[in-house]
Amino acid sequence: MRTSIATVSLSGSLTEKLTAAARAGFDGVEIFENDLLASPLTPEDIRARCADLGLSIDLYQPMRDIEAVPDEEFARNLRRARHKFELMRRLGTDTVLVCSSVHPLAEDDDALAAYHLRQLADLAQEFGIKVAYEALAWGRHVSTYDHAWRIVEAADHPALGTCLDSFHILARGSDPKGIADIPGEKIFFLQLADAPLMAMDVLQWSRHYRCFPGQGGLDVTGLLRHVIAAGYRGPLSLEVFNDVFRQAEAGPTAVDAHRSLLMLQESAGLAALPAPVVPTQVAFAELVTPDAEPVSALLGALGFARTARHRSKPVDLWQQGEARILVNTGPAARRDGTQLAAIGLESPDPDGAARRAESLLAPVLPRRRAAEDAPLDAVAAPDGTELFFCATDRPELPSWTTDFHPVPSPGQPARHVHRVDHLALTQPWHQFDEAALFHRTVLGLDARESVDVADPYGLFRSRPVANADGSVRIALSVGPAPTDDTARAQHIALATDDVVAAARAFRAAGGRLLAVPANYYDDLAARYEFTEAELETYRDLGILYDRDADGEFRHCYTETIGRVFFELVQRDADYRGYGAQNAPVRLAAQHVQRPGR
Amino acid sequence: MRTSIATVSLSGSLTEKLTAAARAGFDGVEIFENDLLASPLTPEDIRARCADLGLSIDLYQPMRDIEAVPDEEFARNLRRARHKFELMRRLGTDTVLVCSSVHPLAEDDDALAAYHLRQLADLAQEFGIKVAYEALAWGRHVSTYDHAWRIVEAADHPALGTCLDSFHILARGSDPKGIADIPGEKIFFLQLADAPLMAMDVLQWSRHYRCFPGQGGLDVTGLLRHVIAAGYRGPLSLEVFNDVFRQAEAGPTAVDAHRSLLMLQESAGLAALPAPVVPTQVAFAELVTPDAEPVSALLGALGFARTARHRSKPVDLWQQGEARILVNTGPAARRDGTQLAAIGLESPDPDGAARRAESLLAPVLPRRRAAEDAPLDAVAAPDGTELFFCATDRPELPSWTTDFHPVPSPGQPARHVHRVDHLALTQPWHQFDEAALFHRTVLGLDARESVDVADPYGLFRSRPVANADGSVRIALSVGPAPTDDTARAQHIALATDDVVAAARAFRAAGGRLLAVPANYYDDLAARYEFTEAELETYRDLGILYDRDADGEFRHCYTETIGRVFFELVQRDADYRGYGAQNAPVRLAAQHVQRPGR
Repeated sequence: MRTSIATVSLSGSLTEKLTAAARAGFDGVEIFENDLLASPLTPEDIRARCADLGLSIDLYQPMRDIEAVPDEEFARNLRRARHKFELMRRLGTDTVLVCSSVHPLAEDDDALAAYHLRQLADLAQEFGIKVAYEALAWGRHVSTYDHAWRIVEAADHPALGTCLDSFHILARGSDPKGIADIPGEKIFFLQLADAPLMAMDVLQWSRHYRCFPGQGGLDVTGLLRHVIAAGYRGPLSLEVFNDVFRQAEAGPTAVDAHRSLLMLQESAGLAALPAPVVPTQVAFAELVTPDAEPVSALLGALGFARTARHRSKPVDLWQQGEARILVNTGPAARRDGTQLAAIGLESPDPDGAARRAESLLAPVLPRRRAAEDAPLDAVAAPDGTELFFCATDRPELPSWTTDFHPVPSPGQPARHVHRVDHLALTQPWHQFDEAALFHRTVLGLDARESVDVADPYGLFRSRPVANADGSVRIALSVGPAPTDDTARAQHIALATDDVVAAARAFRAAGGRLLAVPANYYDDLAARYEFTEAELETYRDLGILYDRDADGEFRHCYTETIGRVFFELVQRDADYRGYGAQNAPVRLAAQHVQRPGR
Repeated sequence: MRTSIATVSLSGSLTEKLTAAARAGFDGVEIFENDLLASPLTPEDIRARCADLGLSIDLYQPMRDIEAVPDEEFARNLRRARHKFELMRRLGTDTVLVCSSVHPLAEDDDALAAYHLRQLADLAQEFGIKVAYEALAWGRHVSTYDHAWRIVEAADHPALGTCLDSFHILARGSDPKGIADIPGEKIFFLQLADAPLMAMDVLQWSRHYRCFPGQGGLDVTGLLRHVIAAGYRGPLSLEVFNDVFRQAEAGPTAVDAHRSLLMLQESAGLAALPAPVVPTQVAFAELVTPDAEPVSALLGALGFARTARHRSKPVDLWQQGEARILVNTGPAARRDGTQLAAIGLESPDPDGAARRAESLLAPVLPRRRAAEDAPLDAVAAPDGTELFFCATDRPELPSWTTDFHPVPSPGQPARHVHRVDHLALTQPWHQFDEAALFHRTVLGLDARESVDVADPYGLFRSRPVANADGSVRIALSVGPAPTDDTARAQHIALATDDVVAAARAFRAAGGRLLAVPANYYDDLAARYEFTEAELETYRDLGILYDRDADGEFRHCYTETIGRVFFELVQRDADYRGYGAQNAPVRLAAQHVQRPGR
């Protein structure tokens, strides 16, 4: 179906908004009146700009407080409408949104509302314009879609129809089933928005917290099915008021928006995308660093061995069990210091995974490889992390490991790490919701609820995404404010069956563990019945502990190099969390260790 | 009364929090358990640190899910409590906060709750500790203060009392009158917090949006009166969970916090501060600039004349009617470029105003003057603007103008500006609530509601403060995010009786007016019945228009120099606003003029 977006959903000047919408692949836009008023472009210029960009103008919006008002007010409204219809003719758009009245003098009189809307439709018809009447969730007397439809039905005018808005319908808790009873040709427009579930004044909720479908908790897919069942074939249009999107760059927001509509159409059965290919493992994590020495020392102390070197690039492969870390000292490292730059995702079908990603607007990365290298498909996640879809030593597929030649490695100490447990990636502040949607839709991972974590200098949010068996887990986190988000640490958590042994071996090999305050262990002693010897071990090694109904979690942290540190984690029974309740203690300890803040 | 603050209300490490609280003048602190757990200091170290800083530890908090739980759970709780009481002995604090249970298995059984709390109090008594039981607004079965008190009364134990929390009481809409019936000696603790009025899930509201008394919409003063009437004489303690304070610097937040308690005590009749001295006029606005030429040209075009020069400093006085602008090319200017650095407030009693400000912790500024200059008291507002309390040419008081000697000024063109209408100051993002409280309490101005204003790159909030007759008006605004707040423009609005004439004269004198898009005037034509000639005039001059039930408002803007621009405003009848609905158009036009963003 055709896709559209209201200009209010994007930041910047009208020109910037239109450009971003077109580049992201939208077919059309709704022009929000205030964006037009604030633009130095004439309506004719805007029309031409949209035509150049291949965008239709699907809606002009909104007209407010039109109907069921006192006579003299309505006369002024008709006068105002005539001006706006003339403007719309100049813009070249044929549908106007009319929101149900919130005027303090509006009467609770459906017949009067219908009478006024019929007169407005008469005038609109002279201009070849259609009026789409929508119930605002906080409309003074008309606040539900079925009520708005009854008035439209009563007015019975060919230039008058209804506009449905998923937020207004679902936020009120209305049952969308009744939509199927509205004749499809009388649904003149469909606006789509999601929102996180919040117990909050609906006007505030709408004006500040809307998000793109799939990013919140409303059943936008279910609603869309009803609208399609009714016979609607107009555009799917996003109208999202969101404080964060208002300040984010328009380009990425528009891509995020369009991706959400692609997903929505897939989930409603309206479009077939390449099927998701869920990764089965973390094949590798790639660190870039300007100085391999401290990273190598840290990996060595953790029990990794340098097993291979890329045949054409300055990249080493370090391995321990199924955990593989690439250390890249190539040009990128000199720019940004030590960081987690790429993730290899073991994929049952790397090509299919890449096709899926591309169809969902993930930026496909140029292949950084020599002619003889194995083909590796990669896309960029919203935070810039490169995601490679790959196969590791599987006979039926080219393996990325063939680009590496083995190097002699010394005899190994006891290995405690068997694989990567999870990766923790700090997201750009403005793209936290986008990141979760990206990982869910592009990678086919499941997202859990976001949790708040208190850092000494502000509140973090953290949202894990994972595949069904937990063999791929990524914790997406975001800091308290747009400042310094790229300076925040990322980390690689390594799975072990014996965190005490792993930590001891690490320390014995010269590694430095994050020191955890003694007070934390006094609290553990108060909450759980550990022996004094156990507590002493944990205190000595800085091992943190969590328990829930499913199992137990023990974990500890290495020092930080550049932006990266490691965590050793031991999950027992079916513990599926990440020790979030220990995060404030860990974050405070990291501030102590690196007081530079 | 003694003042205290919970460590969770401030950002940083425990050491930073304690230092900030002590420097701001608090007598004590509540130690929030997580702050202790995350601290590398031992309890004894913390005790010693507090003693050194002159802080008592008034409360350890919180213990949760203690009462009315299954037997085996309660046994674990007693064990945990013993650990915590030992810890409290090491800390040297004698009161612990117990929050009403939110445990999923907690029973709705007051007798059981009382029985458990009595056992807890028995144990506490062994340690010389008092248990203060508080109803959380979202407690599973106990969520109101009177319910918590009935349980405490039933438990009837000398080591058990209640803790009252203004947020939990007022957020639930409980009537605080009943507090007066609780024996004062059984109110073991009082926690104070305000919050903006929001229709929102109470747990979210409490955890993220609390603020200091006087910054929100709860009647904390009224509640305090009831608590005092009951006979409570313990500390007034702030417990504020706030996402912004968590990331703001602890020092200023602590000052803001202590100021709020001073104000609260004054409003509840518990303390006498020097009375507020409300300013009657803007005596002057002082611009600092590295280059006087463009500022002088702009002022000249606006109809100002350079009438005097400071006798010892590079400061010129420009005047038009009662509007006075100082242009300072001294050393400060070279640091920060052109900005509005100081405001002279005409005060009925400058000394009294300064005493008031000092008593409310406003930083008193060193007098930047020569020995022979008039004494001028000045304090710093939270945004760093210097506020001078002064008298202008009043025989009974030294006048700041005596420091200036007149300079010959050329014959004046028609004067259109008669005074400063308002000053618009961009506030540091983390101190918006503090700024409003400061201007209300220190200057005795009234604050109006904050309004949202859409800038193309994010949402602003703007909150005007003014005296009763509107002769002093300051619009405090804050941008969408902590970034670049100090780069945002400030402006000086000048009052005229004829904005058309003033704008024409300005342009004729070579001034450049902000261009407003033609689309804006098409909209004015749709909304109001202006003649085409009027509209053409407004369009030509970039004059914006607003109307409300009280009157009309016409205004236009100059170009921006450094961070500063001017506005010409004409208020008719009793219009008291600031044309907020035109702000998005103005902001967009300013971005067009200065596309550097």
